[in-house]
Amino acid sequence: MPVKIGLVGTGTVGGGCIDIIQKHREDFKRHYGIDIELVRVCSLDPAEAEAHGVGHLFTSDFHEITGDPEIDLVIELIGGTGVAHAIVTEALKNGKNVVTANKALMATAGEEIFHLADEAGVEIAFEASVGGGIPIIDPLKHSLISNEISSVLGIVNGTTNYMLTRMDEDGMPYDEVLAEAQAKGFAEADPTADVDGFDAAAKIAILASIAFNSRVVMSDVHNEGIRNIQPIDLATARDMGYSVKLLAIGHRLPEGVDVRVHPTMIPRSHQLAHVNGVDNAIYVTGDAVGETMFFGAGAGSGPAASAVMGDVLEVSRHITLGVPPIVGCTCTDELPIVPMDNLETRYYIRFVVPDRTGVLAAAAEVFAKHDVSLRSVVQEGTRERDAVNLIFVTHTAREKNIRTALAELGAMEDMLLADPTVIRVED
Amino acid sequence: MPVKIGLVGTGTVGGGCIDIIQKHREDFKRHYGIDIELVRVCSLDPAEAEAHGVGHLFTSDFHEITGDPEIDLVIELIGGTGVAHAIVTEALKNGKNVVTANKALMATAGEEIFHLADEAGVEIAFEASVGGGIPIIDPLKHSLISNEISSVLGIVNGTTNYMLTRMDEDGMPYDEVLAEAQAKGFAEADPTADVDGFDAAAKIAILASIAFNSRVVMSDVHNEGIRNIQPIDLATARDMGYSVKLLAIGHRLPEGVDVRVHPTMIPRSHQLAHVNGVDNAIYVTGDAVGETMFFGAGAGSGPAASAVMGDVLEVSRHITLGVPPIVGCTCTDELPIVPMDNLETRYYIRFVVPDRTGVLAAAAEVFAKHDVSLRSVVQEGTRERDAVNLIFVTHTAREKNIRTALAELGAMEDMLLADPTVIRVED
Repeated sequence: MPVKIGLVGTGTVGGGCIDIIQKHREDFKRHYGIDIELVRVCSLDPAEAEAHGVGHLFTSDFHEITGDPEIDLVIELIGGTGVAHAIVTEALKNGKNVVTANKALMATAGEEIFHLADEAGVEIAFEASVGGGIPIIDPLKHSLISNEISSVLGIVNGTTNYMLTRMDEDGMPYDEVLAEAQAKGFAEADPTADVDGFDAAAKIAILASIAFNSRVVMSDVHNEGIRNIQPIDLATARDMGYSVKLLAIGHRLPEGVDVRVHPTMIPRSHQLAHVNGVDNAIYVTGDAVGETMFFGAGAGSGPAASAVMGDVLEVSRHITLGVPPIVGCTCTDELPIVPMDNLETRYYIRFVVPDRTGVLAAAAEVFAKHDVSLRSVVQEGTRERDAVNLIFVTHTAREKNIRTALAELGAMEDMLLADPTVIRVED
Repeated sequence: MPVKIGLVGTGTVGGGCIDIIQKHREDFKRHYGIDIELVRVCSLDPAEAEAHGVGHLFTSDFHEITGDPEIDLVIELIGGTGVAHAIVTEALKNGKNVVTANKALMATAGEEIFHLADEAGVEIAFEASVGGGIPIIDPLKHSLISNEISSVLGIVNGTTNYMLTRMDEDGMPYDEVLAEAQAKGFAEADPTADVDGFDAAAKIAILASIAFNSRVVMSDVHNEGIRNIQPIDLATARDMGYSVKLLAIGHRLPEGVDVRVHPTMIPRSHQLAHVNGVDNAIYVTGDAVGETMFFGAGAGSGPAASAVMGDVLEVSRHITLGVPPIVGCTCTDELPIVPMDNLETRYYIRFVVPDRTGVLAAAAEVFAKHDVSLRSVVQEGTRERDAVNLIFVTHTAREKNIRTALAELGAMEDMLLADPTVIRVED
């Protein structure tokens, strides 16, 4: 008896899943003894189902999937925390296993979802929620569990990595790069989730929860995006021997979990510095394994569908063998979240200021007052005649002091002509 | 009731495993509900067991482990295909689960071992046999199974990668680099297994078997090592925009499985070109996931123990839950091995020849006769007065023709002063 699958969401990723089932169903039977059958698909657009040859399975009412007693496993691919939440929770309550790619849902309602799965004795799998096709959740939940993980960090948003790569390699200004990314389909019409770091925040919340065995939700993550980054920042970083990446960072510290997303300078010799374009990579450090990295395409129909269907096949393998859920929630500890104010690192800060004498001295004075020691100051022209870039690189400083200094500078009359660009420097 | 573990082999990796159990046993219970207890250790040297605080568990007779009815799981870490074969097969026959890091054993007797495990209804796990701590076998057996894998290739031998990196970055000649690697403990006194590519051959046999669902054994793998590589080859490669790596390569072709180990030029822009020193990385390409890479430390106490103990915990999790083996042998197809002679690629070939007129022309003539089209020829001095390096780069040519040409040149009197250096060029 094949495992019966219901699919909700027939867009890019859902279409990729349908294609995989049609292409490889016989291979899965022969190689792994896993027989899966797609019995129903749901979306708002029957044309998508028809385009993939499954128009006869179409419904526009997801209850026909979550409520169908014949269905063993529900794939949720519509995203977001509204209808998707209803679909996932209803399916679990009805005793169905669930596979989802929904990072926002898992990073906000993960605890509730694990609890429902546990109560129903079914599985919830979500490999595709982080890093597209890259296996990362599964290795963290299996291969690497003999380690105490000290950090998990990486490039988990392809849109911003593409934009930073273009700014770095081709010197294109932010607005042009964003327009190009939108035209190529790498960025949404409203790019907020990507360029402001929310997408990455959800992903690092999920990774940190698993790596540190302690629940981290999206609102725990301090996130800053790339809106204030310009080619001059990438060029300066390059001169300093660094690359700028939007890093999602999770550290286990003695005082708790440090979890954040922000533009970061990393040495050009680091593996992550070579991860360009829409590629993703996650870097994991454990007390036994040392440093390890998982690299691949972070988005796209094929890669995301590979991860979704990997989960579907694994859960179906368990269903076929009559095996109960093997790994549920592993957040058994309750580690505090370390406040961002406590961070100590080096900072690259670029101000756009009026081109007149005394500005540099005034800014330097504010930093000194707040105990921020400067390593270098460079003044460079801008495209405007009356404005200059004032670039500070600090020695190790406390985040709280940096913020106080920035606030004070921002409040000074006739000082900052734009929001400052802040990039943390990590070695 | 804890899962009872017997460990055979208390050297570098075995010691690392003992350390992990001692350090994290309580964590494994709390996080995963897995309780493991080391009840016996076996090796030839009681001092090793004592050094790790388990002298009271010591035996020098492995039968006290394989034959102990109390033991659920045997870890085999002595390596080789002699005594290790007896330990693993006896343990399986006695109904014990087995975790091993033994690449030579799995690449030669894998079929027998899977068969025994299957008959006994127990698990055999061997993540540590390839890539040290890097999770690669588990992702291939789980996360990536929705793909048809078209290639799996990588840098899987840290010793030779260290040597090539040193030759490239510091221009050290082969003999000096080997001596240094031996002094640092990266290379054995008899370096054959590493420098001639046997270690890598065993590893790619294992990876190809899993990736292509078809048994590949070590003797199926064409292997060439790095003995003929010198700094001039790395410098020339660099000028051409390439890095030289000892690649272990598996391709799924329409006509079968192409599997080989040899020095290879890869573009410096490729992710694998940045994998230096003793690090390893495995690059997997699938029809859905596209390109993905797994990077980390390929050897060492911690990394290898991380992989071994990951397997131990996973199997123990199944034992604890009463779950039968989930994945056994997946070599359900019988794909032919493509003969090396059929390979078509580009070649970098360096000869050391007498410094006299006519040698270049004579060599070029032999290539032309065997249908090998040349892209460039460069003549460079050597340290000896009477000898020069003659470096050919070919257009795409057939392996068989290259070999015939090399044989003919080798047989010519007063022609080659040393074995030619052959590096295949892949883009």
